[in-house]
Amino acid sequence: MSILVVGSIALDTVETPYGKVDNALGGSALYFSTAASIYSPVNVVGVVGSDFDFSKIDFLMKRQVNFDGLTVGEGHTFRWGGRYHENVNKRDTLFTQLNVFQNFSPVIPKHYRNSQFVFLANINPDLQKDVLEQINKPYLTVMDTMNFWINGKRDSLMSVLRLVDVFILNNEELEELTGTANLFDGARQLIKEGPKALVVKKGEHGSILITEDKCFLAPAYPVSKIADPTGAGDSFAGGFLGYLSTCDQINQINLRRAVIYGTIIASFTVEDFSFSRLKGLPREEVEKRVEAFREMTSF
Amino acid sequence: MSILVVGSIALDTVETPYGKVDNALGGSALYFSTAASIYSPVNVVGVVGSDFDFSKIDFLMKRQVNFDGLTVGEGHTFRWGGRYHENVNKRDTLFTQLNVFQNFSPVIPKHYRNSQFVFLANINPDLQKDVLEQINKPYLTVMDTMNFWINGKRDSLMSVLRLVDVFILNNEELEELTGTANLFDGARQLIKEGPKALVVKKGEHGSILITEDKCFLAPAYPVSKIADPTGAGDSFAGGFLGYLSTCDQINQINLRRAVIYGTIIASFTVEDFSFSRLKGLPREEVEKRVEAFREMTSF
Repeated sequence: MSILVVGSIALDTVETPYGKVDNALGGSALYFSTAASIYSPVNVVGVVGSDFDFSKIDFLMKRQVNFDGLTVGEGHTFRWGGRYHENVNKRDTLFTQLNVFQNFSPVIPKHYRNSQFVFLANINPDLQKDVLEQINKPYLTVMDTMNFWINGKRDSLMSVLRLVDVFILNNEELEELTGTANLFDGARQLIKEGPKALVVKKGEHGSILITEDKCFLAPAYPVSKIADPTGAGDSFAGGFLGYLSTCDQINQINLRRAVIYGTIIASFTVEDFSFSRLKGLPREEVEKRVEAFREMTSF
Repeated sequence: MSILVVGSIALDTVETPYGKVDNALGGSALYFSTAASIYSPVNVVGVVGSDFDFSKIDFLMKRQVNFDGLTVGEGHTFRWGGRYHENVNKRDTLFTQLNVFQNFSPVIPKHYRNSQFVFLANINPDLQKDVLEQINKPYLTVMDTMNFWINGKRDSLMSVLRLVDVFILNNEELEELTGTANLFDGARQLIKEGPKALVVKKGEHGSILITEDKCFLAPAYPVSKIADPTGAGDSFAGGFLGYLSTCDQINQINLRRAVIYGTIIASFTVEDFSFSRLKGLPREEVEKRVEAFREMTSF
């Protein structure tokens, strides 16, 4: 089973209480791919500038990640700068230089169009919709979003929501989108719009999977040091979809386990800056932590 | 097995987005007793004023709750007034009238001294220590505290901590007591002081049980409406100790299940004001929700 991801490729300058990196590899498409490719081949659609150093993604090309859908635009690669505080749930964006990402218009290569799993990272919902129109009906579609689109493109976002199977978002985004502080009420409200499942991420407090008639409560894996939270959400999605791509069917128990795999892979991501912890992560190490997590949650 | 609790008996005036009650029954000793007496007889030590209307605790006297250790002091009963906001984790204390509770000096009746389980609610740690000196060695001692004592009586609090088996506190109290924002690091720091287990409550985000070599992660039960959070912590402790009082031994799995029983009983408490939901709660209803919770957390 192959997985298609459409999202950003970025160079991040990140400062946290544990250190700082300049122009380190980042972006939703790459965090997602690194995680998902632990399980299945991944097809990436994105854009970089002519300044992009391809040796930085060597480790992904050597795996099951295909970059035929990567466009090289005239100009600089998307750059983002942010500072996280002691409480890693709060961050200041120091700068956002969209550069070539500004006019990103995803074109899905022909040999990508039958990808069975699709992840629409947090790009403009108009582009998310455009992607769905270019591909053949996949087995499972998952979307993410961000506050920027909730505020600026709400109608467009809601129309994509009606076309996907799973919506992954965080608790603040859910509250902003639905206007209700009760996550469960908010999630049920969105489920009525079409998606079969919602995954609400609560950072260090874990996540919740909501389907029409069930609810699954997942704590977060206890990480002793959150060095850099960047990419946690996208690698969560990568672990989630990566795990599902190995399953015979999409049902309640597999969706629940996918949430756990997302949780565990994100717990590795945040232990170091950029891709330092994630890039060489073997499947066995994920498995080991999933088992530890199972022990920590059984009663 | 009988359980001793030493704590407050109060009349609470509480305002939340769902309504308001004036001089409603409250206090740590009563919330604890109501929950714990679902499982075992409870012996209460506390003080009320001469204005106290004993018919209010009729429902407890009819159960397994013994009030021989209740003193009636000259003056008014302890009164507390608070207002909760939309985000129920934040509350304003509107007034605190200690009244007869000001000079509370617990005297443990002779026939209470062999209680096998002891809960020291969040009273002055000097009094908590005093209680431990009056009783015979119990099977299990559990303490609670509050920010007021962490700031004002830290040394005294730490000396009680060294004498008890389990310390139940919330994440903010843990952070204040240890100076570390990482709950797991903070908890391990306190475990070294003596207690066998720490239960860290995170409100709507669940709780964590930490022992010397293990950690248990428990989400909160999803309540659709938090009408009034007052008493959640004390009824959690009551469910925790009540459940343990029915167990053959205190081991990891029983401690974990006790956390779940505490979680579930607290979830009933907050569904209505004061004791409205909790007072007639049958054991079977708790059991049913524990099973629902088990389903919601299995993967």
